[in-house]
Amino acid sequence: MRLTVRQVAEWVSGEVVGDGEAEIFAARPLTDARLGDITFVEDDRHLDAWHHSPASAAVVRPHVPVNGRPLIRVRDPLMAFVSIVQHLRGDDEKRATSIHPTAQIDPTATVGPEAQIGAFCVVGAGAVIGHRATLANGVSVGKNCRLGDDVTLHPHVVLYDGTVLGHRVQVHANAVLGADGFGYRTQGGRHVKVPQLGYVEVADDVEIGACTTIDRGTFGPTRIGEGTKIDNLVMIAHNCQIGRHNLLVSQVGIAGSTTTGDYVVMAGQVGIADHLHVGDRAILGAKAGVHKDVPPDSRMLGAPATPDREQMRIMMSLEKLPELRKDLRKIKQALGLETKE
Amino acid sequence: MRLTVRQVAEWVSGEVVGDGEAEIFAARPLTDARLGDITFVEDDRHLDAWHHSPASAAVVRPHVPVNGRPLIRVRDPLMAFVSIVQHLRGDDEKRATSIHPTAQIDPTATVGPEAQIGAFCVVGAGAVIGHRATLANGVSVGKNCRLGDDVTLHPHVVLYDGTVLGHRVQVHANAVLGADGFGYRTQGGRHVKVPQLGYVEVADDVEIGACTTIDRGTFGPTRIGEGTKIDNLVMIAHNCQIGRHNLLVSQVGIAGSTTTGDYVVMAGQVGIADHLHVGDRAILGAKAGVHKDVPPDSRMLGAPATPDREQMRIMMSLEKLPELRKDLRKIKQALGLETKE
Amino acid sequence: MRLTVRQVAEWVSGEVVGDGEAEIFAARPLTDARLGDITFVEDDRHLDAWHHSPASAAVVRPHVPVNGRPLIRVRDPLMAFVSIVQHLRGDDEKRATSIHPTAQIDPTATVGPEAQIGAFCVVGAGAVIGHRATLANGVSVGKNCRLGDDVTLHPHVVLYDGTVLGHRVQVHANAVLGADGFGYRTQGGRHVKVPQLGYVEVADDVEIGACTTIDRGTFGPTRIGEGTKIDNLVMIAHNCQIGRHNLLVSQVGIAGSTTTGDYVVMAGQVGIADHLHVGDRAILGAKAGVHKDVPPDSRMLGAPATPDREQMRIMMSLEKLPELRKDLRKIKQALGLETKE
Repeated sequence: MRLTVRQVAEWVSGEVVGDGEAEIFAARPLTDARLGDITFVEDDRHLDAWHHSPASAAVVRPHVPVNGRPLIRVRDPLMAFVSIVQHLRGDDEKRATSIHPTAQIDPTATVGPEAQIGAFCVVGAGAVIGHRATLANGVSVGKNCRLGDDVTLHPHVVLYDGTVLGHRVQVHANAVLGADGFGYRTQGGRHVKVPQLGYVEVADDVEIGACTTIDRGTFGPTRIGEGTKIDNLVMIAHNCQIGRHNLLVSQVGIAGSTTTGDYVVMAGQVGIADHLHVGDRAILGAKAGVHKDVPPDSRMLGAPATPDREQMRIMMSLEKLPELRKDLRKIKQALGLETKE
Repeated sequence: MRLTVRQVAEWVSGEVVGDGEAEIFAARPLTDARLGDITFVEDDRHLDAWHHSPASAAVVRPHVPVNGRPLIRVRDPLMAFVSIVQHLRGDDEKRATSIHPTAQIDPTATVGPEAQIGAFCVVGAGAVIGHRATLANGVSVGKNCRLGDDVTLHPHVVLYDGTVLGHRVQVHANAVLGADGFGYRTQGGRHVKVPQLGYVEVADDVEIGACTTIDRGTFGPTRIGEGTKIDNLVMIAHNCQIGRHNLLVSQVGIAGSTTTGDYVVMAGQVGIADHLHVGDRAILGAKAGVHKDVPPDSRMLGAPATPDREQMRIMMSLEKLPELRKDLRKIKQALGLETKE
Repeated sequence: MRLTVRQVAEWVSGEVVGDGEAEIFAARPLTDARLGDITFVEDDRHLDAWHHSPASAAVVRPHVPVNGRPLIRVRDPLMAFVSIVQHLRGDDEKRATSIHPTAQIDPTATVGPEAQIGAFCVVGAGAVIGHRATLANGVSVGKNCRLGDDVTLHPHVVLYDGTVLGHRVQVHANAVLGADGFGYRTQGGRHVKVPQLGYVEVADDVEIGACTTIDRGTFGPTRIGEGTKIDNLVMIAHNCQIGRHNLLVSQVGIAGSTTTGDYVVMAGQVGIADHLHVGDRAILGAKAGVHKDVPPDSRMLGAPATPDREQMRIMMSLEKLPELRKDLRKIKQALGLETKE
């Protein structure tokens, strides 16, 4: 593949500064770029790395001055670079309806046009799969599931009966939607299961990570709101109602019946107790443990979680705690107070 | 579906108060109930929601007074309502032995009568599967596994060779029982694997959540006691011996060779170090980090975990810590003591 | 199976002390050993348990004195015992190339000699699988994956397109390598996906636990260094570069672009923030929360993590905190200072 910087710039509607006829053979990020490569500089902090890189050209922000090698100036270097890599790969495959001969699709299920269904998939009775859906191999879609258009289910995703997915939902490998909620009654010394009769309902444009589990509601839906993105190994318990455009990072756990507003962000390994509400735009720091409602627009840290400034003060004080104890001992001596220790 | 309150009450042996001839068309929980629905009130705290609900009837506790709309009084409204929803759905399917033609069952394996084995299941040599077992699609049962009667394995469950399951065990999708324990010897700068030769043994009436992993013992069994319920994404390491009727909530992790008594409860994201014992009826709060034995009947919180009252006092004190530092500075000034900060 | 202690000792090149003609019928660990069994004593702490055990012989360290029953002295009793159990089982199966007739192997893929590929496996276009590889049933290998020799993939492992595995890599059931990293741009109130175009590269002799997820890099590789061992339910995010001979215990989560040196150890449920470096031989205690670079050879505890001695002092002080507040109140009274509480 032989291209000029100018040709590449046209793909991303960028402004060329410097030698537009310089040749480009590949695209690699700054840490890996070699002579003949185009790379990108997302942030001014990385300009120094660019100056020391052997790369032949770079995609940069509009204000970056030229300095020897040619630049392509764009508003968003990362997204432009993604587009360049995709162009170089020729990723866009033409697609037609294709159902692997080993797939087991119940005769009462409906599969939309241009769907692709891989080897060893199972689609249950009454299920409806929208247009242009992609089910990779080994996907299991239970009875009466309803999937919108342009849904992608990666290998071995399991949807229990009755799961509902909106348009453009993506679910990564080995995620499980609709398993029974963890609900028991203790009777005569035994934990008796409360049958879980609800389902999982996922709105448009949601993405769900690998090995994440979202349990069905007890009677009605566990809901994931439009545009929300969920990372790997996250647990969302029965009856939760997650709002729109949330970001839930890996290994977050949300207990039963908790609800969140819109634009909530939870960093890795956050845990939220049951029957709580987390308000719009709240941000919960990594490993936060939440056991009270969280007001909108708040930033929380720690376990138990408190507003972040408060937690920062507590954490700084904690480091001084051993010293503080020494001081106290001194004061008590100075005052002639008895010392228990 | 048209029913009267009286007909519905008969299903659950409930006492009708008010108009038993009122018509019921569907059953929905309080938050979703509409006109024509029957709903339920599990707790007196929700009576107010019932008064404002458009629902036409409710299942309630014995002491709840009638107030306009008809009620069905029962001892356990939640379980009665579950039963009503199941009646309305007609969930009970007749079952017969059915083995999907794609399932790969080793000729030396034994499958009990009335078992249902789904598409793409694999059952290894010498495995024994009890009466009325349900293996959903894509289940993998290793060599010489022994499964009791009425076992349910949801899609894509993996049982490594030699796994033993009691009667009525349920395992949810993508759970893995019997993977190798995390055991290595460091020799000459390399971690050399200690072969894991044991197995997993699960007693009667255990339920195991989606994407949960229970590792095989090094030589003998990792054991899960009768009636214990395990949520999603839980990790139980090699050689653990979990007692009877435990409740292990999502994302709990228990390190190798730790044992628990009966009726132990661990809330979400608890972590327990290796080679410890957690006594009967101990309750460990969410995110507790346990690195010492836990006495029976104790309630522990925090990381490192302490008895809950102690931890509560510590947590309350923590919030006051920055203030406390200010006080101390003042005292030191008052006493003319030097200040290092 | 009837054997003498002397015969067993020959398998492990051990020194017999006591009656070498004593008969052995089985091998069981100390907690389970019965009359007629051989067992092992790994540590002098367990010698007392051996004295009270009904077992007929034991594998012990070189210095352990004989005391009635015969002993086999070896340098490493655990590994010798593993070898004895394996001998007794006759575990070594002869292997030949075997590809299950249901496996779907793309005609452009290459499978090395003596490979075993189980039922319902899928191997994508252009994939290369080395000599003596074992793919258990239901394994999914994406397009253009490259697997070294002697690789073992347990049931239902998913490798996304382009995954690279070195020699002797083992991956346990339901692990997912190469899912999309959690990367979004927020534009006009929506989280727009940053396409993830990289891959996962795993070096020789790595072992990866059940239900663990390792995400692909954004452009280049997420790397796992030679000899590193990863437990179950671990999350390694996009662009991470994990060093050689690390030990990552269950439920650890490492955020994007973080790198580790060699011989790093992370105990259970540790969380590391993004774009950090953890130095060679650092040891992170269970549940540590790391949000700063970690120097080589350090031992860290707590969340936020601090050097372990410091954290120990903090934790000890914490237990004294409620008492310390009482003292302070007393001092303020003694000094006649106002009390806010």
